[in-house]
Amino acid sequence: MTGSRAGTIRVSEMFGPTIQGEGVLIGLPTVFVRTGGCDYRCSWCDSLHAVDSRYRDDWTPMTPEAVWDEVKRLSGGVPVTVSLSGGNPAIQPLGALIKLGHQDGYRFALETQGSVAKDWFADLDVLVLSPKPPSSGMDTDWTLFDRCLEAAGGRPQTVLKIVVFDEVDYAYVRDAAARYPHLPVYLQPGNHTPPGGDEVDAGIDKDGIAERMRWLVDRVTQDLWFGARVLPQLHVLLWGNRRGV
Amino acid sequence: MTGSRAGTIRVSEMFGPTIQGEGVLIGLPTVFVRTGGCDYRCSWCDSLHAVDSRYRDDWTPMTPEAVWDEVKRLSGGVPVTVSLSGGNPAIQPLGALIKLGHQDGYRFALETQGSVAKDWFADLDVLVLSPKPPSSGMDTDWTLFDRCLEAAGGRPQTVLKIVVFDEVDYAYVRDAAARYPHLPVYLQPGNHTPPGGDEVDAGIDKDGIAERMRWLVDRVTQDLWFGARVLPQLHVLLWGNRRGV
Repeated sequence: MTGSRAGTIRVSEMFGPTIQGEGVLIGLPTVFVRTGGCDYRCSWCDSLHAVDSRYRDDWTPMTPEAVWDEVKRLSGGVPVTVSLSGGNPAIQPLGALIKLGHQDGYRFALETQGSVAKDWFADLDVLVLSPKPPSSGMDTDWTLFDRCLEAAGGRPQTVLKIVVFDEVDYAYVRDAAARYPHLPVYLQPGNHTPPGGDEVDAGIDKDGIAERMRWLVDRVTQDLWFGARVLPQLHVLLWGNRRGV
Repeated sequence: MTGSRAGTIRVSEMFGPTIQGEGVLIGLPTVFVRTGGCDYRCSWCDSLHAVDSRYRDDWTPMTPEAVWDEVKRLSGGVPVTVSLSGGNPAIQPLGALIKLGHQDGYRFALETQGSVAKDWFADLDVLVLSPKPPSSGMDTDWTLFDRCLEAAGGRPQTVLKIVVFDEVDYAYVRDAAARYPHLPVYLQPGNHTPPGGDEVDAGIDKDGIAERMRWLVDRVTQDLWFGARVLPQLHVLLWGNRRGV
């Protein structure tokens, strides 16, 4: 299960349709394809089961055709938006899957931190670039990030989505937004209670999330920063940290 | 205070900037201008203080210039999206206000049930048409609704936003969406605990809202209706039913 043949995709989980809980497509029915493996180790990662190599035996190598068959089964053959997430889905070979889906009228949104660029970014319908702020413990390499934008070539709808835990993160998003004034910005309050890698129903601090959301709204409006959208992780408020929703 | 001179706008309240909590502009910093008076009396109205004539002494007749000065003051003179809501803001003379705001680079979104058409709909940036389903106790006159679309002339970004409490309402939204296949659809679970006209902090049933939200997501996805977005009233989940947020 740990081998990776050329062209095969390491799949951590597939589920849906359910609504997208975050960012520019919030509320839209979506089928999720979560890939396994990541070049980052964010301190507050909420998808460790798709990141940490101790879960790699749960990741299934699948051909693009097999993934596509499962997406079609989940969606009853009706075109839907497919979210490609991870881990970092950019380290997987997803170009063939996107081609298959487009032939059937489906749309593809990719969410990545922007550390690995692929030519097939230009084939996406939506590219969500989610650079990680200082609270993650990661450093952003803006040269690699720019390569992702170049690979996309302005074809997909492209947005920034950044998690904000504190003032240091907020300063980072102001800088990131200033670097890319043409990109819409979506800010998301951090979740201090992500699942610890366990399967289901980790306790979450909804009041804390709401409180950080209100803080972030105040921060943005007091700065008269009226172009940034502020949105919580709706699925966490509605379903908790359960997987598969 | 109950007079209505030609050109004056009956204002129930103005507040913001805070984020838009619903629909297509969810999460976007917004200044709200809520007008007083409505041609409907929805059973579950969440803005009775802007609808019921027993509150009309709280509605202030203001010139477009006076409203505009207050919007500029609230937004620190920085262009922001202005939400025109009510009540039914379409029964107010808002054309001059929109012209003033556009001169300063502001954007305007109007939310109305679609029962009264005005020429100035064509000057809006966003038109949210929110026909009321059977649970409201109101009947939709689709001829009047069509007149609103004609008045807009396809110029503003136009969407449907419909509240859904139950299966009967759901059948209504399926019909409405089929009538207007070119309009994006936003569905919103109903709130059984709107404020009763009191000022602040009416108790709300957050668990009930979340439950109806999950039901609505299931309903839409089981129908393979992948074009409709499902979004809650975020401000209610985050702030409760308080006014001015």
